[in-house]
Amino acid sequence: MILCVALNPALDITHHVPGADWAGVNRPSQVRDRPGGKGLNVARVLRALGADVLVLGLAGGAAGDEIRAGLEAAGVPSRFTPIAGATRRTFTVVDRVRGQSASFHEPGPGVAAGEWAEFIVAYEKCLAGCAAAAFSGSLPAGVPEDAYADLTGRAVAAGVPVLLDTHGEALLRGAAAGPAIVKPNLAELEAATGLELSLPDGSADHQAVARAARRLRGAGPEAAVVTLGPAGLWASTRCGTWRAVPPAPVAGNPVGAGDAVAAGLVHGLVTGRPWEERLRHAVALGSAAVAAPAAGEFRPEDYEAALAGVVVTQEADG
Amino acid sequence: MILCVALNPALDITHHVPGADWAGVNRPSQVRDRPGGKGLNVARVLRALGADVLVLGLAGGAAGDEIRAGLEAAGVPSRFTPIAGATRRTFTVVDRVRGQSASFHEPGPGVAAGEWAEFIVAYEKCLAGCAAAAFSGSLPAGVPEDAYADLTGRAVAAGVPVLLDTHGEALLRGAAAGPAIVKPNLAELEAATGLELSLPDGSADHQAVARAARRLRGAGPEAAVVTLGPAGLWASTRCGTWRAVPPAPVAGNPVGAGDAVAAGLVHGLVTGRPWEERLRHAVALGSAAVAAPAAGEFRPEDYEAALAGVVVTQEADG
Repeated sequence: MILCVALNPALDITHHVPGADWAGVNRPSQVRDRPGGKGLNVARVLRALGADVLVLGLAGGAAGDEIRAGLEAAGVPSRFTPIAGATRRTFTVVDRVRGQSASFHEPGPGVAAGEWAEFIVAYEKCLAGCAAAAFSGSLPAGVPEDAYADLTGRAVAAGVPVLLDTHGEALLRGAAAGPAIVKPNLAELEAATGLELSLPDGSADHQAVARAARRLRGAGPEAAVVTLGPAGLWASTRCGTWRAVPPAPVAGNPVGAGDAVAAGLVHGLVTGRPWEERLRHAVALGSAAVAAPAAGEFRPEDYEAALAGVVVTQEADG
Repeated sequence: MILCVALNPALDITHHVPGADWAGVNRPSQVRDRPGGKGLNVARVLRALGADVLVLGLAGGAAGDEIRAGLEAAGVPSRFTPIAGATRRTFTVVDRVRGQSASFHEPGPGVAAGEWAEFIVAYEKCLAGCAAAAFSGSLPAGVPEDAYADLTGRAVAAGVPVLLDTHGEALLRGAAAGPAIVKPNLAELEAATGLELSLPDGSADHQAVARAARRLRGAGPEAAVVTLGPAGLWASTRCGTWRAVPPAPVAGNPVGAGDAVAAGLVHGLVTGRPWEERLRHAVALGSAAVAAPAAGEFRPEDYEAALAGVVVTQEADG
């Protein structure tokens, strides 16, 4: 079983409003509610790949109840530690006529010390027998800054490999606790290492990325996989360094593409794929996710088509 | 007790976003959830006036649960017949920097015939011992078009006077069932009578309003009270015709002002105020409601100040 930790999930509400009036009253043509946030996207992609997953997280209020019910309806098992605060919502207005969309992200709830302690108990119970654990997203207020380091340490002690996908202080502290993989994007890697990673034309400076990834890996994790958007992945691992490039730029919704990559990496880890294959699948899942309308989803035919076109090359390690 | 019927309530979600980006991601500085819809606004104003109220309505889904909890927290007793459909939400983004706000109103849920039959049973049980009943707002899909006529007929049979605040077919059919008061606004009266009621400068044509109100009253209700926005009220009753004008235009939020007027009219009805006093209080409540930030609220000092300045004049009846 793969444990997907979602400490700050969200209820994603989407209104489709053709020709929105930003200074008046609108009547959306379509309304959609959906459990969201990075951890749940990873879990959904893993579930679609046929993996046995369990979502573990914190949830409260009406949005928390909706998330529980939505995951159950989608066949994704979950166990949320109840919190007194209300789980956040994201509200997105999609105007297809203007090709414009606006999002409004509520602040997450505060988590009490006792609630966090309760989560840790639930987490420890689930660790035994896990094939891997994925930690994704930001930490809600009230949760200690070293929460991912703590969770990673407990997993490592239990022999469970960890993928960590977060940023800032939580990434730096978590990386030091020895996860199998950290998966920053370019901006997150830049912030974590203080290195300038873009060329004047806006594209990634691969030499600098190689150095930064190696430096981050030196801080504790066994591998650092950097998502470069449409340019694919850069992976610095104990077994070598690779670049994986998708077949062609895909038009669509990049939200959740990084989560599909994370799911591909964890899936490759638990199925024992060698790094080159793991990266090939992760990039293909990322491309298929961009083509899908909603985060955490992909069409198997897009995945297979992308898989055939991904180019993985071994590189010099910075 | 005053029965406030809310067949299509809403959960009103407000995000305050200074300098909103209508094509990007925003982080609201303040989030507020609140039971909404016309029926609940009337109930809240009546409750603030010290009246004994009971909200009766239809509610379902997570938003329905939040409305129940929100009314309980506000000390407004309610009894909602559960429905399988999800109660609608309205979502409003307020940008105080630009002085702009955008609203997104979800469609209401569909109501099954069995659910409507259950509501009628609950309604009949509550009618006995009621001092008055107020019916406000649109009908949700699935509820018969003559729903307000049916509810009015049952109330009249039980000796309970009714205030009806709706529009279109529901207003026309409901008016014929003999409510004590119908309370259209200018546009609703225009639609109901087919008469042109505005002068070329956009203000109300009082002679035409007088004719239209008398005509609507001729269709069944004992009184037709027309809200004219900042120009106050026009009342065509069995006892005479009056115009009630607020002291001065008030800056603020006109949403819910009509509901405050409705509450004032029902309150005056049950407390036995003569028409002139009833209208004076209703106009003052409407003005105080405009000055309050949220629909269904008013500050007692605004109400009292407005009360002193309202001018009520008897008019010729069309």
